[in-house]
Amino acid sequence: MKTFLDCIPCLMKQALRAGRQTSADEKTLKRILDETGSLIKNIPLENTPVETAADIYKTVSRITGVKDPYKKIKNENILQAKELLPELEKKINTAKDPLLCAIRISIAGNVIDLGVDKKFNISNDLDKIIDQDFGIFDYEAFKENLNSSKTVLFIGDNCGESVFDTLLIKQLGKKIYYAVRDVPVINDVTYDDAISSGLDKVSEIISSGVDSPGAVLSKANNHFKDLFKNADLVISKGQGNYEGLSLEKRTVFFLLKAKCQVIAQDIGVKEDDIILKGINI
Amino acid sequence: MKTFLDCIPCLMKQALRAGRQTSADEKTLKRILDETGSLIKNIPLENTPVETAADIYKTVSRITGVKDPYKKIKNENILQAKELLPELEKKINTAKDPLLCAIRISIAGNVIDLGVDKKFNISNDLDKIIDQDFGIFDYEAFKENLNSSKTVLFIGDNCGESVFDTLLIKQLGKKIYYAVRDVPVINDVTYDDAISSGLDKVSEIISSGVDSPGAVLSKANNHFKDLFKNADLVISKGQGNYEGLSLEKRTVFFLLKAKCQVIAQDIGVKEDDIILKGINI
Repeated sequence: MKTFLDCIPCLMKQALRAGRQTSADEKTLKRILDETGSLIKNIPLENTPVETAADIYKTVSRITGVKDPYKKIKNENILQAKELLPELEKKINTAKDPLLCAIRISIAGNVIDLGVDKKFNISNDLDKIIDQDFGIFDYEAFKENLNSSKTVLFIGDNCGESVFDTLLIKQLGKKIYYAVRDVPVINDVTYDDAISSGLDKVSEIISSGVDSPGAVLSKANNHFKDLFKNADLVISKGQGNYEGLSLEKRTVFFLLKAKCQVIAQDIGVKEDDIILKGINI
Repeated sequence: MKTFLDCIPCLMKQALRAGRQTSADEKTLKRILDETGSLIKNIPLENTPVETAADIYKTVSRITGVKDPYKKIKNENILQAKELLPELEKKINTAKDPLLCAIRISIAGNVIDLGVDKKFNISNDLDKIIDQDFGIFDYEAFKENLNSSKTVLFIGDNCGESVFDTLLIKQLGKKIYYAVRDVPVINDVTYDDAISSGLDKVSEIISSGVDSPGAVLSKANNHFKDLFKNADLVISKGQGNYEGLSLEKRTVFFLLKAKCQVIAQDIGVKEDDIILKGINI
């Protein structure tokens, strides 16, 4: 997905929000806005929004000296999600369609996104999303692809959401490569966060090599590129990975909640819709 | 009021919205964002937000070649407000407290603000605001000041709202100077717009001399400055005029709806509260 004009003021807001997480003073926060503002002229709209976001979050870290502004919140969200695990596991095991129930729970986890300007409450949002209609629902194609697959590349998104992904991964019952960001960016899941989320128990965790809040092949390492090409099935979680991969030529299934108008419009759904969308299916 | 950090991404959004009103193409809109982004480093937070806004809206006009991007909408809002006049006049005349009813209607008009990122519906918002509790309600002090006044400086804000101001001005029953912006900025009322709104029938229309979407004394002409100093009563409508005048030393009564979190926080009320606030009373 290309960068839309509306992404630019949104990225400025994100820079300010991330800066505030570091407890920087007003002068430092103003410098973040000054420098991100001056960056805009170097952003080609052909870039994916997550490539631009990478530059902006790097600017925040350089100015504040804080590499992982959301570290504390990430840990809290992982703990909070873990507390819900037993109850959710029971829900899946007693569901009429356990796979679909696990998909819904994994998408519900996608509300834990500190890059977007929306408040969330994991428990409430879980209850809502478990009953919500899908904006796009390519479930039959997904099941067909899954049934004929041995290996799955599962591209993770946010911390906390990552915990719920373990439940879906158990339902998939395949060899799973769980791809994470190479470095901290927003509240996205890194290698260490994936371990804290319990993903090492159900998958092989790999770094995508990217420093952007979404996988982009041009920035990925060879291992990720190989898996993206050769895995039987690719599952991509969240907006950031959609932004980075939506124009790729292979079959990918995107699981996400459309949390902003720009993404919703690009996908062709309404804001706040939940999505199970396959491309090139 | 000083510029808050949150005003900066908001001003970027405003630049984009104003640019879109001119039907500029994507490349031109990107240039607007590039140039407004580069402006940020020159904005001291000690500036009032409306001084910064003036620079940003001038940038939009310079790049697009359109001096009054909101001209069509301004005219539509004036016409729409005029259609409601007979019904509103009846409401005031049959009200228990006609002055207060006219104040409420004048504040309700303040929802017609194209600088903020909120949708409005004049008729619905009128109904709501006529029954809404005030966040701050310095009505007794206002009436005392009014009773001992011969001349009133009434500082207008938006087009459409300006039509409702005629109803309040009739209730005041004083010599009124109605101050407008010197040039078009957002949907703020200019001299020509004031004539279209019928303000020449009930007041003496004067230009404040400012090109910002809010009166600021340092940018005002001498006539406005004299009136601001010497008028018996000053009534200031809307957020922009509050931003520009809230730190002045004379008694001013501000009538507005707090349409963003930054303004609400500065005033000490909740977002969407309606306000009749006197300073230095």
